[in-house]
Order: sequence, then structure tokens, then C-alpha cells
Amino acid sequence: MSFFRFEIFHRSSRSRARVGRIHTPHGVIDTPNFVAVGTNGTLKALDNRMVDSIGLQLMFCNTYHLLLQPGVDVVRRAGGLHKFMNRQMPIITDSGGFQVFSLAYGSVASELKSCGAKKQDGHVLKINEDGVLFRSYRDGSKVLLTPESSVLAQKALGADIIIPFDELPPYHIDAEKLKASLDRTHRWEKRSLDEHLKNPQNQAMYAVIHGGVDPELRKASCDCLTQHPFDGFAIGGSVGKTKAEMVSMLQSTLPCLPEDKPNHLLGIGDLESLKQCVPIGIDTFDSSYPTRAARHGLLLTQEGGLKVSKAEHANCFGPIEHGCTCWTCQHFTLAYLHHLFKANELTAYSLASVHNLHFMVALMQSYREAILEDRM
Amino acid sequence: MSFFRFEIFHRSSRSRARVGRIHTPHGVIDTPNFVAVGTNGTLKALDNRMVDSIGLQLMFCNTYHLLLQPGVDVVRRAGGLHKFMNRQMPIITDSGGFQVFSLAYGSVASELKSCGAKKQDGHVLKINEDGVLFRSYRDGSKVLLTPESSVLAQKALGADIIIPFDELPPYHIDAEKLKASLDRTHRWEKRSLDEHLKNPQNQAMYAVIHGGVDPELRKASCDCLTQHPFDGFAIGGSVGKTKAEMVSMLQSTLPCLPEDKPNHLLGIGDLESLKQCVPIGIDTFDSSYPTRAARHGLLLTQEGGLKVSKAEHANCFGPIEHGCTCWTCQHFTLAYLHHLFKANELTAYSLASVHNLHFMVALMQSYREAILEDRM
Repeated sequence: MSFFRFEIFHRSSRSRARVGRIHTPHGVIDTPNFVAVGTNGTLKALDNRMVDSIGLQLMFCNTYHLLLQPGVDVVRRAGGLHKFMNRQMPIITDSGGFQVFSLAYGSVASELKSCGAKKQDGHVLKINEDGVLFRSYRDGSKVLLTPESSVLAQKALGADIIIPFDELPPYHIDAEKLKASLDRTHRWEKRSLDEHLKNPQNQAMYAVIHGGVDPELRKASCDCLTQHPFDGFAIGGSVGKTKAEMVSMLQSTLPCLPEDKPNHLLGIGDLESLKQCVPIGIDTFDSSYPTRAARHGLLLTQEGGLKVSKAEHANCFGPIEHGCTCWTCQHFTLAYLHHLFKANELTAYSLASVHNLHFMVALMQSYREAILEDRM
Repeated sequence: MSFFRFEIFHRSSRSRARVGRIHTPHGVIDTPNFVAVGTNGTLKALDNRMVDSIGLQLMFCNTYHLLLQPGVDVVRRAGGLHKFMNRQMPIITDSGGFQVFSLAYGSVASELKSCGAKKQDGHVLKINEDGVLFRSYRDGSKVLLTPESSVLAQKALGADIIIPFDELPPYHIDAEKLKASLDRTHRWEKRSLDEHLKNPQNQAMYAVIHGGVDPELRKASCDCLTQHPFDGFAIGGSVGKTKAEMVSMLQSTLPCLPEDKPNHLLGIGDLESLKQCVPIGIDTFDSSYPTRAARHGLLLTQEGGLKVSKAEHANCFGPIEHGCTCWTCQHFTLAYLHHLFKANELTAYSLASVHNLHFMVALMQSYREAILEDRM
């Protein structure tokens, strides 16, 4: 019996939004929720104890990056990713597919999603039914990533939620090739699930629904993947060039998924997308947006984004936002943060990241309350 | 009556080392002690709450940098530097002289001490008896730094210990010019003290002893400056090209200073210098060495420097150093730190800085114990 369990406490009477709780071996994730991205086993400019204190219930780590540095064997010897990075709360890892295919298709895929690998030197040597052979950007060695090897890597990492290996088709692809890619993705996901179920290790596996912006293909992907005992469903691949395209795709796709399993939207977590996608029924969102924005000096507030380096903040001796209970606002002023950014101090990135992540935690809490009170 | 007070608890029977305590309006500094350098009002990659928890009793901030960013008026409006940066413990500021003259003399001065300004674009326009006119590297505006303006800036910053304005002569200077520079420095320091004493504001002022590596000039500097009611004495200027030269200069200089006032060695804080200078009677040392070393992946341990990125540390699942009680060693492994450095994560710099600063705090504690037990 798996430890993984999804409870739904309340469904909105006015939308498909719901409030729930995902149970994992490392604790619960209240939904809807935001998932912070800590690619290399840390959120940038923060340590994992601070991340705990912010209350981020789920962290996303990237198998592709961890595979190449420090390598799966190191993490296994450390006793798994939780022990290696000293995180007691839930972790989700992806399959590595997204990054590998971003390397292969380069700027086309990069157009759509921020891609940590795009500046790196690695490249794909071969793609066939077995999997993908690529060259490590770190040491030049050849690495074969297949559904089985991706799952075995994720077994060694030991995240609470893992993702099957999939193919990320480029955005500009003709219908026939997209269909062929989707069929391969379905075969790869099934192989991933089979590998996972040999030794579930109390991990949950979310399928990844593909099909680009074609509603028929998305529906076909749901129909195929919901026949297998996945624990949840993530929406991946190209979600469209515009938010309207994404929302339209999600509105037609979500009803094709079982209502009693959690849904995750991969790589999307800007404020506008959250606002539009929570009512469609997405339960979790991962994005590096709040931490990246923080490092670029964009602070999130109820009134919108605040550009910290603007001259008008030099003499603001209150917190970033009045009433904010984040650690940064409790201890430092906007004027001090402004100064640290102007002086190019690394401390600025940490303090701004704490604030932005706390903002996300509070925002998702307010979404849950709004749904519970049928205000959404 | 000034709040500033220096107690000496014990003098070594085997050297000039002593254990004491400096009292300031923001708390005590146990001596001998290490002073961390937070040029811009923060230690690099750390926030001031973490700095408190490490137990660093005195922080050094640079008036030159704070004058240009955020500017003295901002800090005054914030209620002083302690409030601006949210530090409750003692702060020392310098006069700005060192940085300004480093700009003027460029690489010659940079040879001797690490200088935050050396890569910057500012330059000195005029030096005369009044002071120094230079161009801000931030906005191109002209800034006049004089003994009076430096002290007034340090009044606005409000550090517990301040430093009179001095001239930093280049290392390669002939005897006549060095003597002329020393005389000007003495006049400038006296003007600084006069300005300070108009409004002491509970601040203490340490004179800066100059004279390069010439023992006669150093002695003359002591003779001149000890006639004025300075609260302590800092050793500044060129301390020599080698450690032996520095030690020899300090051995002849320190006996010329009053035994009941604290001595500070400016800009020197590497481990070997501490070991050699504590027995000569230096009470406090400021240096950016431990934090700079940390950011370069050099971790301080009882066994010497540990280069974190060495491959042999990839699988070290214990702390950086067994028995270390620092926050980093209590929470993370050497293997994880190795990984964060290899992955170029900013978090690495914070965690390594915490360890190195804790090492310095513990090291100085052990020096104090050794002196108390007459083992030094």
C-alpha cells in the first residue's frame, strides 16, 4: 500500500477549483499550492532550513541536473535526496526529458519555457525508441536516458513524487509528427510506470499529459494515460504561445482527467497564470519565477511587482509591504534592500527571495480560503 | 562621560598578549578578537541576523562605500547605521582615506592590501592640505573628503568606534615624502579628533599610527598621537611586504602605545598573522579574508584550509569538520557543500561564509583561553 493519498476537502460551487491535501511520506501538501524550483537541490540563494521556515511544502528538483552533478550515486550513498540536501518536507523530481529535449531543439523549446540547460554546452547524440543519448555538459561523457534509467535515477534520488520519461516535441511541429511524438511519449510513460511499479518505494508517479495545443491530442493523451494506475497527472509539453491559448487548452483537458487525483501544471507559476488556472482545477504549479524575479530585484506585493532599485525606494524605512509577515519584512527595510541591490550584494538576492516565496505561500493560502468560502 | 571603556582581565606572563573587554553603547567586544568586514553594511552572502547568531561582536563598515551608496543622508534618516542595517552589536567605521588613496595610487597600494575600490572607475582630482577631492564612481559627482567631512559622515553613520582621516602613502615612497605624509596625517588626525570632540555622541575614536616600515617614524607617530585623547590606536598604512617585516614593525611599535588602550591592526586577519600578532598585543583585527576565502571555496579547519571543490569531498557525508558547532556543520554535509560549489549555487557562498566566520569566532575564543591560562 502506498503512503501517497489525495484528499479533497471542498469543491468550488462556482468553478472547478478545489481545496485538498496530498499526503506523502515526508508530509502533506495543501492544494492548490505553489512548488518552488530548486534545480540543483537548493533554492537559489537560500538554504533548505530557511525554505522550511517559509512553509514551502513541495520543492521541485531536476533529475537532469542532479544526474550530471553530483551524480545519482552520490545522492544514493548520502541516503537519498532528502538527506543529501537536508529537507524533511516533500520533494518532486522530473524525468530529465524536458531538459534533454530542450538541448536537442534549442531555442524553439526555449521560446516557451525558461530552460536551465539552454546556455550549457551539452548536446544530444541520438534519439530513438530506446531513449536519448546525450553528452554531459560537465565532463563530456555520454549519458543514455531511457524511461527505465530515468525512473531508476529517480528511485535513487527518492523524491516523494516522480515523473515518467517523456518526449518534449518542439512547438513548431506538424500534426503527423506531433501524433508520432505523443505515441512515443505514451509508450515511454508506460515503460516508466512499469519500471516504477517493480519497486514503488512509497513514491508516487504523475503521468505527463502531452498533445501540445491540439485539444483532440490532449484528450487522446488523457484517455491513454488515465488507463494506467498513475497517482496524479501533470500537464506538460507546449501549453501555447499565449495565456489565452494555455487556458483554453487546460479548460478542455482537465475535464478528461479523473477528479479524485491531483493535477500539476509543469513549469508555470506566474501570478496571472495561477489566477486563471486555479479555477480550472490545477492543484500544484512549479516555477522558478518568484526566485528569479527576486534576484532581478522584482518584489511581489499585493499592489503588484515592486522594482526595488527604483530611486523612490532609497528612503522607504518601512518593510517591503506593510503587514507582510515574511522574515525579510520582519527584519529589514525596503530602503536597506534597495541599498543592497544598488551595491550588488549577494545578501540582496537571499532577502528578496525569502519575501517573494513567502508571498507565494500566502497567496496560495488565500486561494485556498477563497475556494473554501466559495468566493472563487 | 563616554560609554566607551576598555578593561584588561589578564596579561600573559609569556608575551605582550592580553585578554580584555571593550565596552561600547551596543555591547561588548571580548579581546583579542576578529572583526568581520561588511563594507556595504552587510557581510557578503549573509544577513545581519545570521551574523549575530555566529557571535561576531564587531563589524567593520567602510565609510567611503557608504558615502557613495546609499549616501550618508539616507543612513541618517534611517536613524544611523545600526538601524539601517539592523545590527544591535558594535560597529566600527573607517575614515574613507584608505579607499580614496588606493584610488589615487592604484596598484602600488593594491599590492599591499586588498582594496574594494581598485576595479572601480572613480579617481582622485585633487589632494591638498584641506583634504581630497575625488569623483564618485557611482554617479560621477565630485566628493570632497576632509578630516571634518569624514568625521561628520561617521557621526551620521553612528558607529561605536570611528577612525580619523589619514593619508595613505604609497609603499614605494622616499623617506622625505613619507615624513611629509606622516606630518600631514598627524595634522589631519588632530583635526578629526577636534571635530569628533565637538559632539562625541558616545562614539570612540581610534588614532591611526602611520610611518610605514620605518621604526623611527612609527615611534614618532606613536609619540605624536598618544598626546591626544584618542580612545584606542589602530596600526595603519604600509605594514611591510612580508609577515616578518610586519611582525618586526609591530614589535617595535606596540611598546610605544599606552598599555591601557585597545590596539587594532587595520586590514590584516589571516590565520598566520593572528597567530603572530596576538602575542605582540594586538587586540582586534579586521579582514575580509574568511568571507572571501569562503566564496572561493576555501573552508577553514583546525587541520588547515580545505578546498571544498576537490573531488575527494564529493562523498564526505559528515560535516566540514567533526566537532564544529557552526550552523552549516550542524545542518549540512561537506558532500552537499562540494555539490553546491560545483553547481555554482549562491547558497554555497552563504553556508561556507557561516562556517569560516564561526571558525574565526572559535579561534579567537581559544586564543583568549590560552592567554588566560598563560599558554601563549
